Amino acid sequence: MIFDIMTLFPEMVENYFQYSILKRAVESGIVTVRTVNPRDYTENKHRKVDDMPYGGGAGMVLMPQPYVDAYESIERCENSLTVMLSPQGEPLTDRLVNELAGYEQLIMLCGHYEGFDERIREIIKPKEISVGDFVLTGGELPALCVVDAVSRKLEGTLGKIESAEEDSFSNGLLEYPQYTRPREYRGLKVPEVLLNGNHKEINEYRLERSLERTRKKRPDLYAKYLERTQDL
Amino acid sequence: MIFDIMTLFPEMVENYFQYSILKRAVESGIVTVRTVNPRDYTENKHRKVDDMPYGGGAGMVLMPQPYVDAYESIERCENSLTVMLSPQGEPLTDRLVNELAGYEQLIMLCGHYEGFDERIREIIKPKEISVGDFVLTGGELPALCVVDAVSRKLEGTLGKIESAEEDSFSNGLLEYPQYTRPREYRGLKVPEVLLNGNHKEINEYRLERSLERTRKKRPDLYAKYLERTQDL
Repeated sequence: MIFDIMTLFPEMVENYFQYSILKRAVESGIVTVRTVNPRDYTENKHRKVDDMPYGGGAGMVLMPQPYVDAYESIERCENSLTVMLSPQGEPLTDRLVNELAGYEQLIMLCGHYEGFDERIREIIKPKEISVGDFVLTGGELPALCVVDAVSRKLEGTLGKIESAEEDSFSNGLLEYPQYTRPREYRGLKVPEVLLNGNHKEINEYRLERSLERTRKKRPDLYAKYLERTQDL
Repeated sequence: MIFDIMTLFPEMVENYFQYSILKRAVESGIVTVRTVNPRDYTENKHRKVDDMPYGGGAGMVLMPQPYVDAYESIERCENSLTVMLSPQGEPLTDRLVNELAGYEQLIMLCGHYEGFDERIREIIKPKEISVGDFVLTGGELPALCVVDAVSRKLEGTLGKIESAEEDSFSNGLLEYPQYTRPREYRGLKVPEVLLNGNHKEINEYRLERSLERTRKKRPDLYAKYLERTQDL
């Protein structure tokens, strides 16, 4: 899968791929990450990429020319989607991540400072995606969230020892509590059921705890889960 | 404000503060970022920080000892909050960001791989925060989202030319469309009203477009906005 990330801060983004599971995904060729800097495409003699907003107001607005030209310089696969990271977008969810993992290429536009000139949206027509109802300095962190979450779903990214199947949301519930060594730490013991090797009991215990936790912490997810399982 | 970030990948996190607005916030002393690596606190002779889950299953679980000891090594201010980044947490919103900006210190626990031994939660009792219903390799990107969003709210981080007041969500609505130079680009023109200098008309136009966009893209926010303004 190819990720093309349009950003004014390519090094900020590239650094993330030097660690851990994403590093391995890049090295093994499962994931290719390329960055494009709109500043390299500006026709402005001072290499400016932003300017004051028409109509007044604080903040700078990203100019259409450098972004549209940078965008058009990217080589496109057939099965490609263009994404704009923006607080106005569709919230990123596990379901949307699965959908994105079906593309061969994701081109991602990261804003910075105040926002995009509206004509960038009109010309490029990206799918807008948001990581939440809060505002960041730029789209770089949300873009990395998309790349990370999508990459985990691609075959071969996670080793045998890891797994995406038991993650939170994979069955619509929050994950059950996990325990590892030692059996007792500061007086707190691992629940007996996890030590007895009875897999049926372990599965029951885990499902119960998942349900309990989801009901308490995320009643919205719990209601959806009940709806879905009652339909079966 | 002090951010203490507990992570197995300190360089991944530190890199983010070498750019843009966050760099400036650190240089001007508004924000202090420190990292703590639980691997430096492990008593395990192989410097292990994770182990297999009791009860079986894929993935590795982060052991309590390195995390609790690393946590206890951090010097605490009086007005301090400990946050665990986790898909099980309260969703990060602009309202929560404002609340977090009221602390002097945020201590943030980033998981990695499969998750935390449950006893880490029981001992540290962190506030759990999530950036959305999707799963990432680790808590590093969500922690950076928190630091970035909170830092923007601190006095002095944004210059006069930037502003958090006109962002999306600051009035409960999505932001109106923005335009900058040139007046015409590929046949698309800046709306006339933004060029005429009539500030009352400009404000009306912008509010209308904010309302329209919010109603269309985020009916949930629109409903809340109506509720709130009808109460006035």
